[in-house]
Amino acid sequence: MEELQELFHRIEDLIPFNRYLGLHAESIDGDGAVVSLDMRDELIGNFQDGILHGGVISATLDVVGGMAAMVKAVLREGSIEESLQRLRPVSTLDLRIDYLRPGAGTRFTARGFTLRAGSRVAVTRMELHNENDELIAVGTGTYIYNYV
Amino acid sequence: MEELQELFHRIEDLIPFNRYLGLHAESIDGDGAVVSLDMRDELIGNFQDGILHGGVISATLDVVGGMAAMVKAVLREGSIEESLQRLRPVSTLDLRIDYLRPGAGTRFTARGFTLRAGSRVAVTRMELHNENDELIAVGTGTYIYNYV
Amino acid sequence: MEELQELFHRIEDLIPFNRYLGLHAESIDGDGAVVSLDMRDELIGNFQDGILHGGVISATLDVVGGMAAMVKAVLREGSIEESLQRLRPVSTLDLRIDYLRPGAGTRFTARGFTLRAGSRVAVTRMELHNENDELIAVGTGTYIYNYV
Amino acid sequence: MEELQELFHRIEDLIPFNRYLGLHAESIDGDGAVVSLDMRDELIGNFQDGILHGGVISATLDVVGGMAAMVKAVLREGSIEESLQRLRPVSTLDLRIDYLRPGAGTRFTARGFTLRAGSRVAVTRMELHNENDELIAVGTGTYIYNYV
Repeated sequence: MEELQELFHRIEDLIPFNRYLGLHAESIDGDGAVVSLDMRDELIGNFQDGILHGGVISATLDVVGGMAAMVKAVLREGSIEESLQRLRPVSTLDLRIDYLRPGAGTRFTARGFTLRAGSRVAVTRMELHNENDELIAVGTGTYIYNYV
Repeated sequence: MEELQELFHRIEDLIPFNRYLGLHAESIDGDGAVVSLDMRDELIGNFQDGILHGGVISATLDVVGGMAAMVKAVLREGSIEESLQRLRPVSTLDLRIDYLRPGAGTRFTARGFTLRAGSRVAVTRMELHNENDELIAVGTGTYIYNYV
Repeated sequence: MEELQELFHRIEDLIPFNRYLGLHAESIDGDGAVVSLDMRDELIGNFQDGILHGGVISATLDVVGGMAAMVKAVLREGSIEESLQRLRPVSTLDLRIDYLRPGAGTRFTARGFTLRAGSRVAVTRMELHNENDELIAVGTGTYIYNYV
Repeated sequence: MEELQELFHRIEDLIPFNRYLGLHAESIDGDGAVVSLDMRDELIGNFQDGILHGGVISATLDVVGGMAAMVKAVLREGSIEESLQRLRPVSTLDLRIDYLRPGAGTRFTARGFTLRAGSRVAVTRMELHNENDELIAVGTGTYIYNYV
């Protein structure tokens, strides 16, 4: 599992926009993925209230849902080495985000869970909480598996 | 209408994350809003293909949908001055994004149309094309009007 | 609470399409709502496999989400009598349904949970299981409260 | 094309729930599908206003989106005979419905358009109008192609 997390850290580092968001992979296993994100001025969406931009929220939930979908497929393949030879990163097919509360806080945690992972398509649910464990937003995503 | 566009340029400038994305308000009127966006390395989502990050797409469509919803309410108020005293920026309630094709291109144009604008809630549809007029993604958004 | 369930049974009986679906309100309280549904030939969507029609699934999840949203508002009002004088049935603003598995089974149970209930709008999540506790479909709904 | 419409009429007739809804395939071609539906007491969702049940609307939009997705795949196969040997009906993966106005009217028309049809998945948009050409609801659907 450590190997799996290292893999995801590496992938995260290679995606410029994830680096800009400051996404940090906290944990990833068969139950799903957890990503954290620190508030910064650049991520503000409402200059009066100083809250997280909705686009930062949707991007973060998209990423963590994709990671949850991806790990399901990696674990299915047997070994990480084999899966890396066959699997390319998942593509998001569609995404629904519900913004429940203003994105106020200093540190946010996003979780992704896989509801169903077929051979071609995965469906995930995602949640974003702030450091006070307030539920800021939820999402549902559909991802396509890409095999070489 | 010129006045309206100036207003939106000003609002755009004040939102740090929109500035980072490089969103530029092209036009805004009763029929909707148009925003453009130039490709940059920082906005890449897939390091192998050099395509736009899904989160950039969803953020852009969210912004242009919100602008379309906002302008409907502003025009309803009579004058921009009056509307500015009563109206605060809209909040996104929920968003669906469908990613139709990889976000390949150098310049992207996002359009938002209002399907329905009630007194409390607006529903919009959005589209993102690249410079070859290929449809990259579509979205549907629900926005809440916030009055002082 | 018994009074609340009676109220919902009555409302269910008055809606012809719910009666046709055969929706039966199992329980309803501050945590959400549960509705059951028996398989019948009339509800079949795929003549070869004999599974539930997707439209029956989306209608059922819509109803149970609306019931969960409604009960939050009723409980907020103090007494059921008072709430009946002020509150009209909620309207569905939008709905997302994810079909995870074919709707095979003889008896289905739909649950609705309210994620957030504001003064004007509520957001709910819904789930449909069959009698073997297999998750058939999930949904997310946004509902508007209508006050007289 | 006549042959294609006959095929869809036959398929519609075989699905009990579509028959109950009273869905009638008006036209179907490479641009999409059109289905009509007459108001009946059994389809009422709100006993006070006599409007269409939200579940009838979502079911109808799901069906017409699936028909639009299906026809794209049939036309790709060369002949209808060949396609019938390889293609099974599409499955809905997910669906978003936005209810814009109360479903008042005596006759409703639903249209489905395919935004993108890949080898495995299609994305469609749908619209429901009443006999006065008022836009009642819109939807977006994702469908999976099933090959024998």
